[in-house]
Amino acid sequence: MRIIIFGGDGFCGWPTSLYLSKMGHEVIIVDNLSRRKIDLELECNSLTPIQSIGKRVSKWNELTKNNIKFINFDVAKNYSQLLNLFHSFKPDSIIHFAEQRSAPYSMKGSKGKRYTIDNNLNATNNLLSAIVESKQDVHVVHLGSMGVYGYSSVGLKIPEGYINVKVKDYNNKDIETEIPYPPRPGSIYHLTKTQDSLMFAFYNENDGIRVTDLHQGIVWGTQTNETSIHDDLINRFDYDGDYGTVLNRFLMQAAIGHPLTVHGTGGQTRAFIHIKDMVKCIEIALLNPPKKNDKVLVFNQMTETHNINDLANKISNLMGVSISYLKNPRNEANANDLIVENECFLNLGLNPITLDNGLLSEVRNIAKKYCNNCDESKILSQSFWTEANKPKKN
Amino acid sequence: MRIIIFGGDGFCGWPTSLYLSKMGHEVIIVDNLSRRKIDLELECNSLTPIQSIGKRVSKWNELTKNNIKFINFDVAKNYSQLLNLFHSFKPDSIIHFAEQRSAPYSMKGSKGKRYTIDNNLNATNNLLSAIVESKQDVHVVHLGSMGVYGYSSVGLKIPEGYINVKVKDYNNKDIETEIPYPPRPGSIYHLTKTQDSLMFAFYNENDGIRVTDLHQGIVWGTQTNETSIHDDLINRFDYDGDYGTVLNRFLMQAAIGHPLTVHGTGGQTRAFIHIKDMVKCIEIALLNPPKKNDKVLVFNQMTETHNINDLANKISNLMGVSISYLKNPRNEANANDLIVENECFLNLGLNPITLDNGLLSEVRNIAKKYCNNCDESKILSQSFWTEANKPKKN
Repeated sequence: MRIIIFGGDGFCGWPTSLYLSKMGHEVIIVDNLSRRKIDLELECNSLTPIQSIGKRVSKWNELTKNNIKFINFDVAKNYSQLLNLFHSFKPDSIIHFAEQRSAPYSMKGSKGKRYTIDNNLNATNNLLSAIVESKQDVHVVHLGSMGVYGYSSVGLKIPEGYINVKVKDYNNKDIETEIPYPPRPGSIYHLTKTQDSLMFAFYNENDGIRVTDLHQGIVWGTQTNETSIHDDLINRFDYDGDYGTVLNRFLMQAAIGHPLTVHGTGGQTRAFIHIKDMVKCIEIALLNPPKKNDKVLVFNQMTETHNINDLANKISNLMGVSISYLKNPRNEANANDLIVENECFLNLGLNPITLDNGLLSEVRNIAKKYCNNCDESKILSQSFWTEANKPKKN
Repeated sequence: MRIIIFGGDGFCGWPTSLYLSKMGHEVIIVDNLSRRKIDLELECNSLTPIQSIGKRVSKWNELTKNNIKFINFDVAKNYSQLLNLFHSFKPDSIIHFAEQRSAPYSMKGSKGKRYTIDNNLNATNNLLSAIVESKQDVHVVHLGSMGVYGYSSVGLKIPEGYINVKVKDYNNKDIETEIPYPPRPGSIYHLTKTQDSLMFAFYNENDGIRVTDLHQGIVWGTQTNETSIHDDLINRFDYDGDYGTVLNRFLMQAAIGHPLTVHGTGGQTRAFIHIKDMVKCIEIALLNPPKKNDKVLVFNQMTETHNINDLANKISNLMGVSISYLKNPRNEANANDLIVENECFLNLGLNPITLDNGLLSEVRNIAKKYCNNCDESKILSQSFWTEANKPKKN
C-alpha cells in the first residue's frame, strides 16, 4: 500500500511509520517538525535522546533495506506542495497525525489556542480539499481523541461514534434515528477534533471521501518492536507538564522519586492504550477501510479505563513513591464514569497489552534508564484552563 | 451600549451599524473590506452603487451627528490589534459578521474552501480568545445560518438550537436529555457555522462567555430606513451566481426580463427574512443577552418559509417573466420540508415584514432602478459542489 504519514516524526507518527514500513508498505513521512520546535519554545526535551529525522530515517532504511522518504513541509500552510504530492505519489491511504496534540498547550494562553485552531483545522481541511482536487480515491485515517465524547457521568456507554436516539416528530410521534454522539470537548485541542469530525462528515457526504476516525485514549509506553532495534530509532518520551500524558508522567516521577502529581481529586477516569497497540490499531484501520458510500467509520482506540487515583496508587505501591494532590489546572468535573465500547478493534483482532503487565518494564527500560535527562522544573503543568484554575499565590 | 461590529461594511453589517448608531449606541466598525475584494476577484459588483466605507461613514456622521468609527484590519489575522481594541474600547457587546458568507463561493474549488475555513474559524476563535485574554464580560452576537440544521425531511420541527432526545443508559433504561440539534451543513460555508457553534459552546462552558447565535434564513430586500436617507448610504445588492441569494436574484432577473433561474426541481424549501427585520432581530438579541452562566442562546432568525418553485411562480405571475430550470450546482436533496420554530424573536416583539407585502416595491425601487448596472454574464452560478453537479458540455 502507498501511504503518506502526516506528522510522521511525532510520538505516535514515528513508530507507526516504522511499523508500516516493516509490513512492506511504501511510506512517505511529511512533517514540519513542529513538535520539536515546540520543545524549543517550552525549553524542554524528550526524556529519551531522539535523533534528527534525517538520521532516524536513514538508519531505518540502512538497517532494514526499506525506503521511507521524508519531506519537510507544513500541510496547514503549503497547499500546492500537498496537492503536488498527491498527484505524484498517488497514495492509497493517508494517516493524519499532523495536529497540535497537547490539551494543556492548547490552553496555554491565546497563543496556544490560536496555533491549535489555525494549525489543526487548516491541516485537516487542506488534506481533504487536496484529495477532492486530485480526484483520487484516498482512504483517510485520522487520529481523533476519546476526549471528544466529554467526561461526564450521564450514565451512557460511550459508543463508537454514533448513537441511536428517539425524538418527537411534528406529529408528536417518536421516531428513532442515529446521530453522531454529541461532542463535549474539554480543551481547545479536543475542540479541534470535534470540528474535524464535522469536516469529515461533510467531505464524506459531499465528495464521498472515505474516512476512519480513531478516537484514541491516552497512549502509554514508549518503544515498539521497531523503534527498539537501534538506539538511533528511539521514540520520544514526554514528561513535561504540557506534553507528558498522565501515565508516562507518573512513570518518570516514580523513576526519580518525585511524588506523583495528581490533579484535583484524581477521581477522573480516562481511557488508555499501549503504544504497540496504537500502531497495531492503525494497521487494522488501514486494512479495513470503509467501503464506497459508507459514512465516516469511527473506532474507539483504547483498551482499558482507569481512575487516576487508582493509577497513582498502583504505581505508588509498585515503586514506593508518594502521591501529591495539586489543584487541578483543568476546568473539569472532579470525577466521572467512563464505560467505552471498543468492540470494533477487538473484533478485528486486537489483543491488548494490559497496564498490569507492561508498567514495570516501562519504568525500568525508559524512565529509570534516561532519568538523568529530566529537568524537574518542567514537571508541573503551567497551563491553566481559567484564572480560577491557577494555584493561589502566597 | 458600546458595540463593535465586525464585518460592518457588508450586506448585513452596514445596515446594522447604521440602525444601532441611530438608536444611540456607540458603534465601531471593524472590517478588512474582504467582501469588496472578492467582488474584484469575481469581476462583479453590487447592483446598487455603494460608496467607499470612508464616504459612507462620514456621510452618516455628517447627516445624523452620530459618530461611527471605522477601523480596517483583519480579525482572523491581526490578533494583537484586536486585543488592543478590546482593552481600549471596552465593548459591552460585539456583533460578529466577519465571515465569508457565500455557500457557492465556499465551494468554488479549493481556494474558496480554504479561505472560508481559514478566515471564518480563525476569526471566531480570535474574537473569543481576545475576550478571555482581555478579562472583560462581552456579549457576543453571532450571525449563524439556518443551513446548519440541514435540509432533510425527517419530520422534525427545527428547534431553536437544542432538542430533547431519549437515549438508553447502560442499564438499558431510557433517559431524556437535551442536546444541540445535530448539525448537517450543506457547504463549506455552512460547515464553518457548525464549527463556530462548537467553539461557542466550549468558550461558554470553560470561560463563561455569553453568546447569542442567530441562525438566519435567507435575507431579502436591500434598504433599511437608515440606508435610505441618502444615496451615499445605499446598501449593497448582490445578484451574481455566488453572492446573490435566490430571492434577490429572482427580483433582478424579473427587472431585466431574464428567465428566473431555478436550480434543480425547485422543490427546496428555504427560510427567509427581510433585511429590516434582520436589523431589528440583532437589536432584540443585543437587548436580551443571556445571563451569566446561561448556555449559548440560539434564536432562529427567519420569518417565513417558501418552496423555491412557489417563489419563482409568485414572481413570474407578478412580473410576467418565464422560469428556466437549470441543473442544480449544489449537491442536495431535490425537495425538503422545513418547519421552523421562531417563537423567541416573536415573543420578544418582532413583527415581520412579509414577502407578499414587500416584493413589488423591492423590484421597483432597487432592481428596476439599477438594472443598467447588471452584468448578465455573472447571473449563472459557476460554483459546483461536485464534478457531477457541473452542467454537461456539448
